[in-house]
Amino acid sequence: MQTIRVNLGPRSYDIAIGHRETGFAKFVRERVPNVSKAIFVADENTRLHAEGLAAELGGESVAVVPPGEESKALTVAARLYDQLAELAADRQTLVIAVGGGVVGDLAGFVAATYNRGLPLVMVPTTLLAMVDSSVGGKVGINLPQGKNLVGAFHQPVAVWIDSAFLDSLPDREYRSGLAEVVKYGVIQDAEFFRWLEANADAVVRREQVAVQYVVAWSCRLKADVVERDEREETGLRMVLNYGHTFAHAFEAAGGYTGWLHGEAVAAGMVCAARLSERRGLIQGEVTARMVELLRRFGLPTVRRAEWDPEALLTVMRRDKKSIAGRMRFILPTQLGRVAAFDDVPEAMVREVLAAP
Amino acid sequence: MQTIRVNLGPRSYDIAIGHRETGFAKFVRERVPNVSKAIFVADENTRLHAEGLAAELGGESVAVVPPGEESKALTVAARLYDQLAELAADRQTLVIAVGGGVVGDLAGFVAATYNRGLPLVMVPTTLLAMVDSSVGGKVGINLPQGKNLVGAFHQPVAVWIDSAFLDSLPDREYRSGLAEVVKYGVIQDAEFFRWLEANADAVVRREQVAVQYVVAWSCRLKADVVERDEREETGLRMVLNYGHTFAHAFEAAGGYTGWLHGEAVAAGMVCAARLSERRGLIQGEVTARMVELLRRFGLPTVRRAEWDPEALLTVMRRDKKSIAGRMRFILPTQLGRVAAFDDVPEAMVREVLAAP
Repeated sequence: MQTIRVNLGPRSYDIAIGHRETGFAKFVRERVPNVSKAIFVADENTRLHAEGLAAELGGESVAVVPPGEESKALTVAARLYDQLAELAADRQTLVIAVGGGVVGDLAGFVAATYNRGLPLVMVPTTLLAMVDSSVGGKVGINLPQGKNLVGAFHQPVAVWIDSAFLDSLPDREYRSGLAEVVKYGVIQDAEFFRWLEANADAVVRREQVAVQYVVAWSCRLKADVVERDEREETGLRMVLNYGHTFAHAFEAAGGYTGWLHGEAVAAGMVCAARLSERRGLIQGEVTARMVELLRRFGLPTVRRAEWDPEALLTVMRRDKKSIAGRMRFILPTQLGRVAAFDDVPEAMVREVLAAP
Repeated sequence: MQTIRVNLGPRSYDIAIGHRETGFAKFVRERVPNVSKAIFVADENTRLHAEGLAAELGGESVAVVPPGEESKALTVAARLYDQLAELAADRQTLVIAVGGGVVGDLAGFVAATYNRGLPLVMVPTTLLAMVDSSVGGKVGINLPQGKNLVGAFHQPVAVWIDSAFLDSLPDREYRSGLAEVVKYGVIQDAEFFRWLEANADAVVRREQVAVQYVVAWSCRLKADVVERDEREETGLRMVLNYGHTFAHAFEAAGGYTGWLHGEAVAAGMVCAARLSERRGLIQGEVTARMVELLRRFGLPTVRRAEWDPEALLTVMRRDKKSIAGRMRFILPTQLGRVAAFDDVPEAMVREVLAAP
């Protein structure tokens, strides 16, 4: 069992990473000694596992939500509020999210807002949730008008990662998670990027040692960013959005059923790198290495041909990072380093989107 | 115009207190220089005023919610989310609450959660909102199962108080607000309590100088507590709940339509003082002075005779401050000072409730 510390002063916490480790109850009780009771939140896919952990912790209750993005909704949050009220939850009642990003974001939002904040434990079960959404405190739900429009910053008190979940994760979902892993290399750590290039086959084969290293190092890199800008106030945390302005447009173009988030991020990162080339910030070789690595991970690197560049551009202009209608891009300036630019001509973005 | 500073590090803000002062737009723009647009939230009673302020700020939009406690609901919050989405709100979009506690709590909760937090300006229009709910960052909505069960801590960036609103406030509402004012004297400031005794008639007549002093000093006293325990973590902020465990039971007994919050707090404070007497912490003279002052303010000092003490006790056991079912009370140890006690025998509480 490996432990990674996220240093956020009074809100610091540990991420435990292991493979079929026992000791979940002990791990939780050490970190939340005053816990009065707990509610597990799971979906149909993770329900059995949540029930197992609940039994280990001493017969706590399990709330099950439908699987899929539709559960990140106010109506589903309202049902969880009801269940907390039925339990007579107090401020010592623990919320434990067992699942992927949807369950974590939803349960996290409910924990952030019930009684003005309940302690939250994350048990991510997908690669994407392990390396991204369960670390850093962003929680939220969707509105019909947009994803994650309602949310909060609410750090967990602990994160428990069992990499055994990855053994049975559908291939496409596993590969999708790897896109965010590649991202950490590109934005923060050229050495990690090189490690991924050298070990791509082992990673794809999900060899235990390689997988654990990928998860642990990604968590460490994300924590480094979150520690320096917990609430997205200094602009530093924005580097995590590398490739995401393009990605959100790809997701929207596919009606959120076309590409998985990681697939959209993969192609989005390549677009941002090409933008960086055109701005003269990097050489084509950097982009070529990204494209090669993403391909080995079975990820797309260009938009689907049927998506109209002009329509994609319209979505991008509405991006949350836009200020007064001007798009802001995170662009690589070398492998392992990025910076924010808000003076990219729209024509340049159009060219990149239109490229085959 | 008088200004009170609430010192909370990066979340510090000013409370401006005046009487028909102009300069609202300047006050806001000085504090939120990057504001892109604003949405005012008001109810039917404060709509006109909100429209006036909106015009002053440059034609911003006004969202109107039904008056009354029923608006502190998820469904009403959802409508405000929709309006923010329609406005294409970004993180620089300001939410400005113009109204009493309901509007402030609701708009504050929406501001706390939309886009993970929008800047919030409070324009309280009732005495209770001026001296209590608009200062300190507690925002929230009700569930059918209980009041304020869903919420957050979200400090405003500024509070603008125009005491002219108090000139037209219904008498009962004005007097209800005075209960929280008396509370600050009892829990924190014996000198202020004596001032209230000496100036009770001027306060009841709503003489401008007296009213402004009451508002300003109450805000200062509440800020002192909030500054030392912003998120109710050290237990210190709990002193503000003096009288409230009893009060919540009185409000519930009246089906939330019997007593106003301040009326319930008035009688609740007297109950807590009698408990303190029985514990031997204070002399009967302290309670007698409280009863006298509250009566001069036209506030109740004993429960309504038809409310069954046993039923009240049942509600009190469910109080949020209870830990493992044990009630916790804030009790005066002398005029101007209180402490928390969780070892009060239930029989003693029953006696106090049963006393005529």
